[in-house]
Amino acid sequence: MKKINVGIVGLGRMGLTHAENIVERIPEAVLVAVCSFVDEELQMAKTKLGVEKAYTSFENMLLDAEIDAVVIASPSGLHGEHIRLAMKKGLHVFCEKPIGVEVEDIERTIEVVEGYPKQIFHLGFMRRYDKSYQYAKQKVDNGEIGDLTLIRCYGIDPASELGNFVQFATNSKSGGLFADMAIHDIDLVRWFSGKEVKRVWAIGKNTAYPELDDLGDLETGASMMQLEDNTMALLVAGRNATHGYHVETELIGTKGMLRIAQEPEKNHVSIFNNQGVVRPTSQHFSERFKEAFFREMKEFILCIQDGKQPGVTVYDGLESTVIANACQESVDTGKMVEISK
Amino acid sequence: MKKINVGIVGLGRMGLTHAENIVERIPEAVLVAVCSFVDEELQMAKTKLGVEKAYTSFENMLLDAEIDAVVIASPSGLHGEHIRLAMKKGLHVFCEKPIGVEVEDIERTIEVVEGYPKQIFHLGFMRRYDKSYQYAKQKVDNGEIGDLTLIRCYGIDPASELGNFVQFATNSKSGGLFADMAIHDIDLVRWFSGKEVKRVWAIGKNTAYPELDDLGDLETGASMMQLEDNTMALLVAGRNATHGYHVETELIGTKGMLRIAQEPEKNHVSIFNNQGVVRPTSQHFSERFKEAFFREMKEFILCIQDGKQPGVTVYDGLESTVIANACQESVDTGKMVEISK
Amino acid sequence: MKKINVGIVGLGRMGLTHAENIVERIPEAVLVAVCSFVDEELQMAKTKLGVEKAYTSFENMLLDAEIDAVVIASPSGLHGEHIRLAMKKGLHVFCEKPIGVEVEDIERTIEVVEGYPKQIFHLGFMRRYDKSYQYAKQKVDNGEIGDLTLIRCYGIDPASELGNFVQFATNSKSGGLFADMAIHDIDLVRWFSGKEVKRVWAIGKNTAYPELDDLGDLETGASMMQLEDNTMALLVAGRNATHGYHVETELIGTKGMLRIAQEPEKNHVSIFNNQGVVRPTSQHFSERFKEAFFREMKEFILCIQDGKQPGVTVYDGLESTVIANACQESVDTGKMVEISK
Amino acid sequence: MKKINVGIVGLGRMGLTHAENIVERIPEAVLVAVCSFVDEELQMAKTKLGVEKAYTSFENMLLDAEIDAVVIASPSGLHGEHIRLAMKKGLHVFCEKPIGVEVEDIERTIEVVEGYPKQIFHLGFMRRYDKSYQYAKQKVDNGEIGDLTLIRCYGIDPASELGNFVQFATNSKSGGLFADMAIHDIDLVRWFSGKEVKRVWAIGKNTAYPELDDLGDLETGASMMQLEDNTMALLVAGRNATHGYHVETELIGTKGMLRIAQEPEKNHVSIFNNQGVVRPTSQHFSERFKEAFFREMKEFILCIQDGKQPGVTVYDGLESTVIANACQESVDTGKMVEISK
Repeated sequence: MKKINVGIVGLGRMGLTHAENIVERIPEAVLVAVCSFVDEELQMAKTKLGVEKAYTSFENMLLDAEIDAVVIASPSGLHGEHIRLAMKKGLHVFCEKPIGVEVEDIERTIEVVEGYPKQIFHLGFMRRYDKSYQYAKQKVDNGEIGDLTLIRCYGIDPASELGNFVQFATNSKSGGLFADMAIHDIDLVRWFSGKEVKRVWAIGKNTAYPELDDLGDLETGASMMQLEDNTMALLVAGRNATHGYHVETELIGTKGMLRIAQEPEKNHVSIFNNQGVVRPTSQHFSERFKEAFFREMKEFILCIQDGKQPGVTVYDGLESTVIANACQESVDTGKMVEISK
Repeated sequence: MKKINVGIVGLGRMGLTHAENIVERIPEAVLVAVCSFVDEELQMAKTKLGVEKAYTSFENMLLDAEIDAVVIASPSGLHGEHIRLAMKKGLHVFCEKPIGVEVEDIERTIEVVEGYPKQIFHLGFMRRYDKSYQYAKQKVDNGEIGDLTLIRCYGIDPASELGNFVQFATNSKSGGLFADMAIHDIDLVRWFSGKEVKRVWAIGKNTAYPELDDLGDLETGASMMQLEDNTMALLVAGRNATHGYHVETELIGTKGMLRIAQEPEKNHVSIFNNQGVVRPTSQHFSERFKEAFFREMKEFILCIQDGKQPGVTVYDGLESTVIANACQESVDTGKMVEISK
Repeated sequence: MKKINVGIVGLGRMGLTHAENIVERIPEAVLVAVCSFVDEELQMAKTKLGVEKAYTSFENMLLDAEIDAVVIASPSGLHGEHIRLAMKKGLHVFCEKPIGVEVEDIERTIEVVEGYPKQIFHLGFMRRYDKSYQYAKQKVDNGEIGDLTLIRCYGIDPASELGNFVQFATNSKSGGLFADMAIHDIDLVRWFSGKEVKRVWAIGKNTAYPELDDLGDLETGASMMQLEDNTMALLVAGRNATHGYHVETELIGTKGMLRIAQEPEKNHVSIFNNQGVVRPTSQHFSERFKEAFFREMKEFILCIQDGKQPGVTVYDGLESTVIANACQESVDTGKMVEISK
Repeated sequence: MKKINVGIVGLGRMGLTHAENIVERIPEAVLVAVCSFVDEELQMAKTKLGVEKAYTSFENMLLDAEIDAVVIASPSGLHGEHIRLAMKKGLHVFCEKPIGVEVEDIERTIEVVEGYPKQIFHLGFMRRYDKSYQYAKQKVDNGEIGDLTLIRCYGIDPASELGNFVQFATNSKSGGLFADMAIHDIDLVRWFSGKEVKRVWAIGKNTAYPELDDLGDLETGASMMQLEDNTMALLVAGRNATHGYHVETELIGTKGMLRIAQEPEKNHVSIFNNQGVVRPTSQHFSERFKEAFFREMKEFILCIQDGKQPGVTVYDGLESTVIANACQESVDTGKMVEISK
């Protein structure tokens, strides 16, 4: 079968992850072009990844490189524009989350995407491609835990990254804790329940890093949500887990409960030492979801070969941003926020 | 040292637990009198527990039996009256939670209790006497997890008891899920943080047992709380845990997290069978907190001998009821509720 | 019912544990006399435990104190003599393990015990009274894991005690690692399987504490055993567990496996910190088996009241010592040892 | 860089695993030829894997297909001949364990392999490529658990496969439980300790499947080993784990213990249901070591590209077979067996 030629824009942490997966583990695709504003990244792409064509302009890459598909890992604020350009150029598109920062921008993107139904559009909610999440989803869909009553999601970044984050957030707009961190969890709530969120209340606290107050951001936040069928959701998002990267999801049903990664185990090793029994933990999203990132990219390529749309749609991108924004509004106003339809 | 003569009122599950602990495991006390409206219970107390004096009237027990202390395990609605009668009679009092159902009733009780500062008054928040909770409390107080940011408490009764509960709640007033179940967790939030609750929003869902709608009660409820220093609390209360009795508490601090009974392990046994690796679970509060019930009763008796008041005060009883009532009000009105001071 | 008057000999760690249980938690018994060669221990028994009669001679205690039963926690070498004296004096006897050090001495003890079938004789294999072990035993007896194929037992003392042990072993005879430590595990092999051991091979290694070579003792030892029905047993005994007190037992059957205390959890708390997820561990036998020590002593007292012999017999004491000695012989000779019947 | 052309012999479970990894996940290699005696397998290789050249003769494949490397997954008895033929033909060789069944055959193979030092020879001890094993190895080599005292290895196949095995073993020679199952664990003992085995005693028991007696094989076996520096090793091998595929390794050192896969967790999901808390388990070696199989094959290809020999040598293949044979001899004779050097 014909190999898929791919171009990528953005070679930061996420872009590099996708680029490496294509080059090292996906024989069905070839990474033929990269685009970045950072010279070192382009250099690295040539020497380490063996990519021949390097661009500093996204539009030039679309015009010049003979690519079938594009992977968008540029800054969030550019996602919308990049998606629309690529779609109009006839390319298949894989876009990192979020699909956009502003709701109107996302709606314009949706319009464009809808105009090219034969081109694959894939949004990078990679957790849906993690084996543990897929295993849990199947159990929920099979009715093994009965009807869903409550979903609890934790998404807490490692404390070791907090310093970097404060610096990063000082220079650019992260979109706030809920848009930046909780958006994956919001997608999970919708994915597992198949229901939309009706109302949210969100609160937060800055203790270890009061400088986040000045940035209008949060060290740790919590949100309680009521879904349209009264299913409950509790979300905790944060940036200060001393034990590493804590992504945990719980599904409480009328016939049982499931927990995914109740302890973020790094591997199968247990250490018995003077601390007690220690289970080492994942330290970063790239470690915890390494396999999921590979699987979603493989899925994208296979969808192109098979002419099938993947399960994550452009509408999932819109809804999760709407809800994340509502959480932020609730923190800002101190009030409960209704999600209008 | 002189043995403490104890009378007990109420020989339901809780009363029996206390009675057995006194008779079988506390040499410093003697159970000399019991009071109940149920004939079988009085009979059982005589034959099985060897108690000689049995009463059907609480006041008669106070007048007739030569007791130093009374254990109150009567229906919640009678707690206030029983406490006040015993206090005025000069007795030391151990009272099962809650201290009362109505706030005014509790305030009247407090007034009486304050009038007898030399008599021991002990409220049955037994979790404070559980070794795991005490171990965690010490770590929090030592600053081992830094400043508290978020507290999560689960208190879910076993599904196997739900049928009984529906019948019980049909006949009498349980006070609702939050007053009946979450009150222990509310006490834990206050105990661990040392802070008062400022605002709550509570929601719930009845799916497995819609008949609870008619009773105005909930199968599962969730509450998010903001404390006076912005510490966050998430509570889940329920009556439908298929795996048993699920009481779990999590303390997220700026330097680490603690979880108490993340899995409600029954004992030290793991079973490797065709299900996978199975850890059997506690099936009932009397199983999980067996040792804590013993330790709190021992503490009560030793406090009497030593003339020292225990750590759980009459005010803890008031506050936890106020907050539980606010949760219920939030469920009823669909609004956030401010706790006034 | 009449309270049982108890005298105790030996107030070291084990003796004190038994004494405290009787005084603090067993209303059916009264500790009326203690015997020790150590003045401070006798003093402590008077002031802290409120025991009135204190002796430096075991025989004097038997003659003078009006006791129904005696608890023997003297040095192992004296157990046989103390049992025989007490039995002949008409007393019920609880004896700490082992029943004796030399096989002939044990056989003489057995003869005496057999002569007083109405007096209770109870040997302190307390693990049989631990709830986890009892839970596992019931599952095995119910056939839930099919036929037993292999039993694995670990009994490893905390490294923190090793310095003390070296000093202790320099001054007196511990009997060696297998007699001192593995004897509980040998009893478990026999208890769970209901079979006798046919052949053993035992080896060991001293690395952290080569000074144990001079003492003829072992830091860590392993023994493989073949039972009369070919069931296999693997035992690891040691004195150098950095994580605490590691007693673990595994039962592999044709239909499943059971593990008791695969991790020696101290309590229900999990700590999430910069080490990973840490489960604190039991640090000492008195911590791990606190409840079992209470339950075996309660059982002893209730057996006296009810006139029933407990499950652990004098013959269990003999067999476990015979097997422990065979392990030691195997280490000494480097050969496999057949256990003759 | 030039892509490596690979031919594979044997398309049973292991051969297929390797073939799929090359085709689906290793862009640096191309699977150009397959060899099998089974028509369906060759057909499947063409249609599903897209391999063009299919052979029924290994020698013909070597002569005709233009390959750089060969993967040997034929029946164990043919490994030696296939390795020697391929080596002499100038090809790089990856061979599934074992390197051979008879020691003399292996020694002849070693001679040939030694004659072609520039050709890569890689033996399929895939556990060394598992992330958990590599993580543990690093900790041991860093001295984090001090000096190794005891190694415990469990390798137990799922009961669900036992029926198949009995049929398979009836028709062909498995080499016995130790050569067939324990050989990976024997390699681990040597790899972790860096020491050779001095003496072994092995025993076994057939209970669930007495028909294995007729086959001279074992349902469950245990072996105790003494290494040249007195380090101890305990191995349990079996074919009857009802909970799935149980491969567990424990390393006891003077400063701590490590356990790899103490519970063979399938993924990150925990299920709370009426059994208790259930952790689902790996059901098969192809599930547990899926990633390790990929990583070892990737390593083989990268070693060819880089001209570097991998860590697993032909001598590791010899030693592990010698020790497995000694275990079998011990079972057959009932005696301890010394491993001569």
